[in-house]
Amino acid sequence: MRNLSLLTDLYELTMMYGYVKAGMDKRISVFDIFFRPTSDMSYAVACGLEQAIDYVTGMHFEEEDIEYLRSLNLFDEDFLTKLKNYKFSGDIYAIPEGTVVFPSEPLMTVKTTLFEAQLIETALLNIINHQTLIATKATRITNAAQGKPVMEFGLRRAQGPDAGIYGARAAMIGGCCGTSNVLAGEMFNVPVLGTHAHSWVMSFSDELTAFRAYAELYPDACTLLVDTYDTLKSGVPNAITVFKELRAKGHKPAGIRIDSGDLAYLTRKARKMLDEAGFEDAKICVSGDIDEHVLTSLALQEACIDSYGIGTKLITSHSHPSLGGVYKLAAIENDEGELVAKMKISDTAEKITNPGFKTVLRIYTEGRAAADLIALRDEEFDESKPLTLFHPVETWKKTTFTDYKIKDITVKIIDQGKVVYDFPDVKDIIKYAKESFSEFWAEYKRLANPHIYKVDLSDKLYELKKSLLRETHK
Amino acid sequence: MRNLSLLTDLYELTMMYGYVKAGMDKRISVFDIFFRPTSDMSYAVACGLEQAIDYVTGMHFEEEDIEYLRSLNLFDEDFLTKLKNYKFSGDIYAIPEGTVVFPSEPLMTVKTTLFEAQLIETALLNIINHQTLIATKATRITNAAQGKPVMEFGLRRAQGPDAGIYGARAAMIGGCCGTSNVLAGEMFNVPVLGTHAHSWVMSFSDELTAFRAYAELYPDACTLLVDTYDTLKSGVPNAITVFKELRAKGHKPAGIRIDSGDLAYLTRKARKMLDEAGFEDAKICVSGDIDEHVLTSLALQEACIDSYGIGTKLITSHSHPSLGGVYKLAAIENDEGELVAKMKISDTAEKITNPGFKTVLRIYTEGRAAADLIALRDEEFDESKPLTLFHPVETWKKTTFTDYKIKDITVKIIDQGKVVYDFPDVKDIIKYAKESFSEFWAEYKRLANPHIYKVDLSDKLYELKKSLLRETHK
Repeated sequence: MRNLSLLTDLYELTMMYGYVKAGMDKRISVFDIFFRPTSDMSYAVACGLEQAIDYVTGMHFEEEDIEYLRSLNLFDEDFLTKLKNYKFSGDIYAIPEGTVVFPSEPLMTVKTTLFEAQLIETALLNIINHQTLIATKATRITNAAQGKPVMEFGLRRAQGPDAGIYGARAAMIGGCCGTSNVLAGEMFNVPVLGTHAHSWVMSFSDELTAFRAYAELYPDACTLLVDTYDTLKSGVPNAITVFKELRAKGHKPAGIRIDSGDLAYLTRKARKMLDEAGFEDAKICVSGDIDEHVLTSLALQEACIDSYGIGTKLITSHSHPSLGGVYKLAAIENDEGELVAKMKISDTAEKITNPGFKTVLRIYTEGRAAADLIALRDEEFDESKPLTLFHPVETWKKTTFTDYKIKDITVKIIDQGKVVYDFPDVKDIIKYAKESFSEFWAEYKRLANPHIYKVDLSDKLYELKKSLLRETHK
Repeated sequence: MRNLSLLTDLYELTMMYGYVKAGMDKRISVFDIFFRPTSDMSYAVACGLEQAIDYVTGMHFEEEDIEYLRSLNLFDEDFLTKLKNYKFSGDIYAIPEGTVVFPSEPLMTVKTTLFEAQLIETALLNIINHQTLIATKATRITNAAQGKPVMEFGLRRAQGPDAGIYGARAAMIGGCCGTSNVLAGEMFNVPVLGTHAHSWVMSFSDELTAFRAYAELYPDACTLLVDTYDTLKSGVPNAITVFKELRAKGHKPAGIRIDSGDLAYLTRKARKMLDEAGFEDAKICVSGDIDEHVLTSLALQEACIDSYGIGTKLITSHSHPSLGGVYKLAAIENDEGELVAKMKISDTAEKITNPGFKTVLRIYTEGRAAADLIALRDEEFDESKPLTLFHPVETWKKTTFTDYKIKDITVKIIDQGKVVYDFPDVKDIIKYAKESFSEFWAEYKRLANPHIYKVDLSDKLYELKKSLLRETHK
């Protein structure tokens, strides 16, 4: 990993400098990363933890970084020396990658000195916001595809190299079956996929010659792009000619790809032509500006599609290109060394943060996730007793569980600067993500007006919040 | 720069393999990068060239990359050896960074062997699409700000580290006055900016104490964030208290920042409070989900704003998070070694590509850009003779220029593998971009229903296109 120690907002450094000057830099503080509800995202899929932790444990200031900071004329030598000696020494808790998560839930909790906690804010948000966004978008698309394979094809439209590389990783965790991105394939050991472009067809004297050359090269994996000139008049007939030649030689043609035009109409017609020529097994892959809504619409139009290649709309999360995760102070040591809960106030009830050192519990009934509970980390729950939850804003809305299981979904990742978590490889995260996704009823995951999953506060956390609100309004 | 040799779509490699097998890999070909018109972008600002060229000249395959490609069981040893020996040997032409450009214009033209041209497609598109997108969005925002400073604050919401780093670079080229991103500041020698966050205020026992601590630290650059608890009841009054203390000590307070709430109402009220306390010079900076439309609306509401901090909406180009640039074959050598023009056909007239080895000419009248002309590279124009342009689709629309200047806006960047262009530093690109932007009348740059700038084809190019269309439809 590159040295990203300066990948931070300047104000993190000016605040750190201020904390040193105020003698507060060593105070233990607790920060949470969470995202707020948006109309487009009823849930999210936690992603990016491994890269976030790589960043935290790997970061250090090189001499040239210190030199640059010195040139800003904002900091004194004592502070620059502190940076030079920087090494993360605190604790980090997080919800594992691939877990379905909801607004307000701490995806990550950082407990360390104010100095360290402030330094890593920006890069942690950058990494987790990005990968969580793309993994979430990928589940929206792969879920809409109802089991048909979805390939990630977005590298050329990604917002820079990292967006392509880590976006591909997140897309795989969100259910894609492979990526066109070769570097992502190498780095994360996931399947790489692809056939040929329009330029292949255009480089030969004609389409049929181009198809024949491709078939000769990959006789057992021959997927032909049929829309360079005219899909139904030229592309599909030429593909069928080549498929017949392949069949005569004992090969089984893979299928065709259509990248433009009216995909519902063209795939129905192409399917008919392929079937009539005896290629019922040849698959039809479509690509070109598809997202979860187009995909759902295609299914309603009885399009004949076997798989999807999704580029721009997935790799940029086009309809909603930011997650909006934030990093908020939840507690800090006072002069007496006691951890004091802190809360950001806002006129909007939903924007008031949850104070204290917290964790996230998931409650299961009938083998499915029924609700989440944000609780203080030192609380205990007894599954043998009924559990009553209430809505944190509309408090008259209550639910009581009697036969339930409760599970803390956060994990300790770093303990006093030392990684204590065994990072699963991407293939295992993919498997785990599928399980997590299947724990939720479909109504929470549908695209239109999803049912809002219950995320409530424990009685103790709710009381703490109320008491802090009362204090502020005194 | 990291080794990004595998940052490519798999199909580039499978096609290259095919070209080798078909004996076509050494054929000289011409590829253009251009973008198609979209409702949201009437123009763009070319950006990303330096990183794109760094990628082209720096790319090489490491032994581990070859090993990975071997493990895919798709390629033979002869092909892997070709990759191992890969070094770009062709020519690249481009429109310099910071230039205002329009749909269909080749931002970059690659002329080299089919093997090399295909390999670099994906990463070139990735880099140029991303930076051009963000530079363009930045000009939309900074233009709407009508000379008031706009700061780039988006790192935490960028789609990964590169999106933050190169997004900041592009935002500066698009007119931002500085960035919060320290790494971008170091890498590109641009101003870094920032003050403090809500967590600063929350870390102290109360807001006034936090403000005082900050003022002590930066008495001559004291901008206070006033919306942690209550902007008008707590934040602004506390800021004024501290400003008075600063003034008593001979310092001039910088101002306040408001990050939430109704910015039109709050800034008007805050301005009044600051003025009444004698701080007419204290600036009001606003941030929080602002884009070019919110910014325009704030101005109409007589908001009292001196500068803007723009995060998410700029760094992701939120309303339009992809440029959609493509890389299309325009010409290729035939069996006789002659360069033959190529064209991609489509049912939609605008999607038919422009064939041949081309350049872009800009026509100036009265010192302003009046129209662009896409021409074949070997054409010559005589400014002393009248020039008639016609619309490439609606050909009855004609314009004749008599008193005009004509300028080729493309530059040769790489000649036979060797960089022949002297890359300006970012500060010079910023200056050049401002000049380029000012060459265009406001009606081309307005947000709502912009006037469409004329981009026409030379007679010779138009004839070539028609003849290729006729050939196809025979």
